[in-house]
Amino acid sequence: MTDNAASPTGLTLLGLGAMGTALASAWLDSGHDLTVWNRTPTRAEPLAARGATAAASVASAVAANDLVVLCLLDDASVRSTLDGVDLTGKDLVNLTTGTPGGARALAEWAAARGARFVDGGIMAVPQMIGVPGSGAYVFYSGSAAAFEAHRDVLAVPAGTTYVGEDPGFAALHDVALLSAMTGMFAGVTHAFALTRKENIAPHELAELLSGWLTAMSGYARGIAEHLASGDYTTGVTSNLAMMAEGNATLLATAEEQGVSPELLLPFMRLMRQLVDDGRGDEDTTGVVDLLLGSRV
Amino acid sequence: MTDNAASPTGLTLLGLGAMGTALASAWLDSGHDLTVWNRTPTRAEPLAARGATAAASVASAVAANDLVVLCLLDDASVRSTLDGVDLTGKDLVNLTTGTPGGARALAEWAAARGARFVDGGIMAVPQMIGVPGSGAYVFYSGSAAAFEAHRDVLAVPAGTTYVGEDPGFAALHDVALLSAMTGMFAGVTHAFALTRKENIAPHELAELLSGWLTAMSGYARGIAEHLASGDYTTGVTSNLAMMAEGNATLLATAEEQGVSPELLLPFMRLMRQLVDDGRGDEDTTGVVDLLLGSRV
Ligand SMILES: NC(=O)c1ccc[n+]([C@@H]2O[C@H](COP(=O)([O-])OP(=O)(O)OC[C@H]3O[C@@H](n4cnc5c(N)ncnc54)[C@H](OP(=O)(O)O)[C@@H]3O)[C@@H](O)[C@H]2O)c1
Ligand SMILES: NC(=O)c1ccc[n+]([C@@H]2O[C@H](COP(=O)([O-])OP(=O)(O)OC[C@H]3O[C@@H](n4cnc5c(N)ncnc54)[C@H](OP(=O)(O)O)[C@@H]3O)[C@@H](O)[C@H]2O)c1
Repeated sequence: MTDNAASPTGLTLLGLGAMGTALASAWLDSGHDLTVWNRTPTRAEPLAARGATAAASVASAVAANDLVVLCLLDDASVRSTLDGVDLTGKDLVNLTTGTPGGARALAEWAAARGARFVDGGIMAVPQMIGVPGSGAYVFYSGSAAAFEAHRDVLAVPAGTTYVGEDPGFAALHDVALLSAMTGMFAGVTHAFALTRKENIAPHELAELLSGWLTAMSGYARGIAEHLASGDYTTGVTSNLAMMAEGNATLLATAEEQGVSPELLLPFMRLMRQLVDDGRGDEDTTGVVDLLLGSRV
Repeated sequence: MTDNAASPTGLTLLGLGAMGTALASAWLDSGHDLTVWNRTPTRAEPLAARGATAAASVASAVAANDLVVLCLLDDASVRSTLDGVDLTGKDLVNLTTGTPGGARALAEWAAARGARFVDGGIMAVPQMIGVPGSGAYVFYSGSAAAFEAHRDVLAVPAGTTYVGEDPGFAALHDVALLSAMTGMFAGVTHAFALTRKENIAPHELAELLSGWLTAMSGYARGIAEHLASGDYTTGVTSNLAMMAEGNATLLATAEEQGVSPELLLPFMRLMRQLVDDGRGDEDTTGVVDLLLGSRV
């Protein structure tokens, strides 16, 4: 919709899957000059009808703007999509999910082609994109200069949290939070299994779980303090020895309710290992070190 | 401190460990007539100095009030402590941690001795007891009449949440919430392990984790809806197939960072099993059923 090939608020988006389409909508809604490209061209049509420029090729899409955002399947699709395209002077912002190592490798790959590179990890589902107050945000890391240059544009679809020059840090933060969430989901799943055959309304348990987990989410702060100080001991209450005793009740209850304990056992085993090593007066922080020292 | 053997606001507390002492303090602070007993009598002395009546025997402690609260080590210590004591007409409120089955058995045991029985599960550490706004509360279940008769007294040290006549339900809710918390703690531990060797400040990760887990704690509501409806399918986004793909990134990142995946693998395996069974368009609710069907 614009002839201005490098408008300060213009940007190019490669990839119009569920997430890319949500991002595109947010930029269009806020009046940005948006050039889009997708491997399957039909996905660009509804966006073109709303004012986006649908580029005929990756090369022309990239040529249209300094800022090129990618939201593709994986690192391999990023490389193959940009293969042979002139990236000189471009700022690549890669919102494709990958590992920290993958992001670092892409950053080198981009630098060798004359582009600045910023990696992003999206902490949201598409429905939250462009919705004020949804809490959606994106971790960014890599070139600080490129991030600063485009901060305002990037802030349109979701909040921005810049976590450092290391291009791997956005993915690392992303994966760290998703990993913690996976553990929480596993625990919640076990909780519902415990009550499944009882006359307990699932939505009532859900409210109790939601409130309790929110109240206990500060646990991370305690672990952080211990890691920072190197002293993992606690006061007299809620130390590992007491938690290990409590675990016996959790396991006995699972047994009574006919629920496999498989989701809880690995963490309990590591807690027990620390107690057996004479560290019952500490909290669970030592498990962090066990995970790093003892590969499965 | 009172000669009124069955004052309406009088109560007896058996067990003055860390938790029992915190409960006793809260009742004394609010002016209740409190009779206490502890196996090791010296622990009653500071409370007697603050106005509690230190009973010389379990029998005299139980005789002093209709309401008898127990906060002992385990079910066995409850039975042995009350062995041979006349419980006729008494209301026993057992705040000792145990399993649902254990609480049901104790309820029968109490009924055979002429007592009403209420079980409790304390969702707090001693430091939170008697502190307004701490969020401390206790699940209660069992005799509704006994609970109603003593609701106001029981509400002094911590909030009260009555969850039904089944005497096992307080323990079941308690264990369900603690189990979910255990999963969350495991996930948080994995997250810190991922970033441990990087230049990422633990307290900054802690704030991010805390906010993220709070935002994601509503997951339980989605599971509850699916369990209630029996339809586990989701919309196009965030289904099991997508989550299983994402898990590959979490595992690859753990590998890169030298972190054992043992805390995350069991849940991921069950998610994969559902996808392999052709249920990739559902969410994780099916894992609840797997935990009940496939014992380890
Ligand atoms: N959806 C979410 O909830 C969510 C949340 C956070 C992060 N993300 C991340 O965002 C990225 C995109 O996710 P999505 O939900 O939009 O996925 P999606 O709906 O499956 O879309 C995938 C996109 O990648 C393109 N693509 C796949 N392989 C390609 C290749 N070899 N060459 C060029 N293009 C290729 C697809 O093009 P075609 O249309 O031609 O197939 C499509 O545009 C992923 O990395 C995902 O992890 C998603
Ligand atoms: N502390 C917490 O954070 C917490 C949180 C929730 C629930 N709880 C539950 O509250 C209960 C008490 O915990 P606590 O922290 O107070 O434990 P604690 O400090 O270890 O005290 C244990 C109490 O039980 C008594 N006891 C142990 N064995 C006994 C026996 N065979 N006969 C008579 N009395 C016996 C002890 O008496 P002596 O003084 O003679 O040893 C002491 O009064 C436990 O069931 C615990 O699971 C505690």
